[in-house]
Amino acid sequence: MVSKNQIKLITSLQQKKYRNQHQLFFAETKKVIDEFLDAQFELVQIYTTQEGLFSQVNQSKICAISETELKKISALVTPNECLAVFKIPVHASFEAKGLIVALDDIRDPGNLGTIIRLCDWFGVETLLCSKETVDVYNPKVIQSTMGSISRVKVIYEDLIPFLKETKLPVYGTFMDGATIYAEKLPEDAVVVMGNEANGISPEVELAVTKRIAIPRFGNIQKTESLNVATATAITLSEFRRN
Amino acid sequence: MVSKNQIKLITSLQQKKYRNQHQLFFAETKKVIDEFLDAQFELVQIYTTQEGLFSQVNQSKICAISETELKKISALVTPNECLAVFKIPVHASFEAKGLIVALDDIRDPGNLGTIIRLCDWFGVETLLCSKETVDVYNPKVIQSTMGSISRVKVIYEDLIPFLKETKLPVYGTFMDGATIYAEKLPEDAVVVMGNEANGISPEVELAVTKRIAIPRFGNIQKTESLNVATATAITLSEFRRN
Repeated sequence: MVSKNQIKLITSLQQKKYRNQHQLFFAETKKVIDEFLDAQFELVQIYTTQEGLFSQVNQSKICAISETELKKISALVTPNECLAVFKIPVHASFEAKGLIVALDDIRDPGNLGTIIRLCDWFGVETLLCSKETVDVYNPKVIQSTMGSISRVKVIYEDLIPFLKETKLPVYGTFMDGATIYAEKLPEDAVVVMGNEANGISPEVELAVTKRIAIPRFGNIQKTESLNVATATAITLSEFRRN
Repeated sequence: MVSKNQIKLITSLQQKKYRNQHQLFFAETKKVIDEFLDAQFELVQIYTTQEGLFSQVNQSKICAISETELKKISALVTPNECLAVFKIPVHASFEAKGLIVALDDIRDPGNLGTIIRLCDWFGVETLLCSKETVDVYNPKVIQSTMGSISRVKVIYEDLIPFLKETKLPVYGTFMDGATIYAEKLPEDAVVVMGNEANGISPEVELAVTKRIAIPRFGNIQKTESLNVATATAITLSEFRRN
């Protein structure tokens, strides 16, 4: 049984404003919830239509609900057995070492989710997001990461001061950059990926110390650009294959 | 002015059944429509709220409409000045040479659109789609390709007979494949990419002659898999960088 107030609270968490106010977010599907539990995220409550689905969890944290109730709180088109509310973790400051990906105003939740999966795959532990980047606790991002968000530290920061001060080389992709295939890429670096429509912003561009490019092989000039998630895929693959 | 029958026809083209019946599809936004015009797709009619937007087109093919009318025929959340109806081209049989991408039941329109952009970027001229792959003339695919679909030949075929008969090596990505970074990849090959949820189907797997893998660098076993579009990005990049 879920109360009116709980329904109101959970549906409000679809909005960034209320996630920030309550410092809570929610995740759906057994698979994704399990990933957060395994990663020691602090659970507030699980709502589920299936008894015994989370036997490892303290039963006081589990609330049995009906399909109709699940529909009321879910953000999915097809709600799937369970929804869990977690506290947003407080990340201590991060260490500027290893390979760091920095996102300059990524707006699409699907792109952010895909990039988090890529960071997880390629062992990138820190993902820096500009303050205008879509919120990582947006339900669409949470679901599209398939749980890998529980293993990548996502930090919202003003990019400019960090990029200006860091001792790491700062890589950015530009049409006129040096081909990424010929570069000797270091293990420790920051890789900046730009906004879907506008690319890397002029202020951030000034902080880039290494301009690289993914060569195009199509036979005409028309090919616009790569989607930011596929460009991130190729770039991270190049950094790791070295 | 757009007639009731035209509205009915155009909105019906959001469904594959009616696209096949009429052998028509539609595209939206000036940018995307221009790409199809440049690529010599056969135009049936342009509907636009802006006079003079397509001065290169025979004016008998242009129909001036109101914003309200555009909303009625558009598949976009925010309709944008114009919509054009084109004939679906009839592709003659294709030549099995060069680098060919074959999709084994890709279901998500966004993934197909992204893969078409990748083919365009990496100079892949032929994209083979299994018959269960999402329809390329689906409005969501058309819009997400940003026009690059006009430069990639997309052919729906039974994959199995083609893969069994082709003399080209057939590459497929599998967890237990040889690392793609160490392979000498040929210029002429077929690269099979599998379904989002189930990967490459068992029947198609039997036709794969080269099992490859994109290595993972994350420190734990949990990382599921790469999204099919990002896996395609990395694979095509490896084939071309050689």
